[in-house]
Amino acid sequence: MTESGQNTRKRPTGRRTGDSGTRDAILDAARDLFADLGFDGASIRAIAAAAGVDPALIRHFFGDKETLFASTVADRTAIPQRLVDALTGDPAQLGRRVTDTYLKLWEDPETQPVLQALVRSATTSDRAAAMLREVLGARLLSQEILPGFDEDRIRRLAICASHLLGIAVARYIIKLPAISALPRDALMDEVAPTIQRYLTGQHQ
Amino acid sequence: MTESGQNTRKRPTGRRTGDSGTRDAILDAARDLFADLGFDGASIRAIAAAAGVDPALIRHFFGDKETLFASTVADRTAIPQRLVDALTGDPAQLGRRVTDTYLKLWEDPETQPVLQALVRSATTSDRAAAMLREVLGARLLSQEILPGFDEDRIRRLAICASHLLGIAVARYIIKLPAISALPRDALMDEVAPTIQRYLTGQHQ
Repeated sequence: MTESGQNTRKRPTGRRTGDSGTRDAILDAARDLFADLGFDGASIRAIAAAAGVDPALIRHFFGDKETLFASTVADRTAIPQRLVDALTGDPAQLGRRVTDTYLKLWEDPETQPVLQALVRSATTSDRAAAMLREVLGARLLSQEILPGFDEDRIRRLAICASHLLGIAVARYIIKLPAISALPRDALMDEVAPTIQRYLTGQHQ
Repeated sequence: MTESGQNTRKRPTGRRTGDSGTRDAILDAARDLFADLGFDGASIRAIAAAAGVDPALIRHFFGDKETLFASTVADRTAIPQRLVDALTGDPAQLGRRVTDTYLKLWEDPETQPVLQALVRSATTSDRAAAMLREVLGARLLSQEILPGFDEDRIRRLAICASHLLGIAVARYIIKLPAISALPRDALMDEVAPTIQRYLTGQHQ
C-alpha cells in the first residue's frame, strides 16, 4: 500500500516510499485541484488520480474530503503560518500588519483560490463549516501555534477574523463597489485602526 | 395572461386581476420557497406552480432568478427598511441601534433563512453576487432610501455592512465557537462601538 505513493506532480524525480511520501503526494494533488476546481469541484477520485494513488488511500489517511481540504490548507499553503507571523512583532503596528497580511493572502494568486474555496465551502456546506471550525480552528487556536492566548484574546482574534472575512467577502467575492473600488491604501487606513483596537483590547 | 395570477398561498380569497396581482402572487410564493429551500433549491418552475402561474410569466416580470430573489428580499421582507430605519434617530446610539437591528434580522426566524440564502447564493454564484450588488445595492444605496449620503458616508456604511456580514457568517453560518458562544450582550459590547466609530467617521 505504501508503495503506491508515486508523485507525478511538481516533483518529477522518482518514486516515493512510505506513508509520508503517499501523504505528500495526496496533499500536493489536493492543493492543485482544490485551487483549480474549488472544494465541490475537486473530487476525491480526481485527487487520487492526480496523486497516482487509490481513492481508498485518501480515506485511509484523511477520512473525508473536508478533513483533506483542511489538511491541505494547513500543510500546503502558507496561510496559517503567515497569519500567525503577523501576530508577532511590534505591538504598535499589529493592526496594520495583520490587515496587510490578510489582504495579501487574498491578493496572492497562489492563496486567493484556496481562500475562495474555503469561504464558499464553509458558507454552503455544514460539513465544510464544521471542518473549518474544528480542524483549522483547532490548529490556529491551539496552544502550540498561539501560545499563551487566553479566552479574551482568542475572542478578540475571532472578532478580527470575522471583520476581515467580511471585508474579503465584500471586496473579492461579492465585489461590492464601495469596497472593491477602494484603493488598497485607503482600505488599510479604514480598517487597520479597528483591527489594532480589537487586538489590543481597546475597542470600546 | 393577467388572469393567470391566481394566488393559492397565504391569501385564500379569490382570483387576482391585473399585473400587480400576478406579481404579488409570484413574490409571495418566491418568499416562501426561497426561505424553505434556499436560492438554489427553489426553482422558477416550483415558484410558478406555487403561485399558480406559468413559469414564462416569472421571466416576463422579473427576468432571471437572481432578480426575482432580490425583488423578493426588497419587497417581501422588512430587511432593507429595518436597516434604513436603524440609521435614523439619536446619533449617539447609532452603533448600538444598527448592530442590534442587524443581529435581530439574523435571529428572527422569518428573516434568518432569507439572509442565509442571500449569503450562500452571493458567495457561490457570480450571478447572484451581481444581483446583490446591483439590485439590492442600488435599492439600499439609492438617493430615495438614503437621501443625501455622499461617497464617504456610503463607503463607511459599506465597511460597517462588511464587518457585520463577517460577524453574521462567523456566528450563524460557520458557527465559530469564539463568536457563536458569545452572549448577545457581550457581542453588542464588542462590536457596537466599532460600528459607531465607522458610521460617524471617527474610526481612526
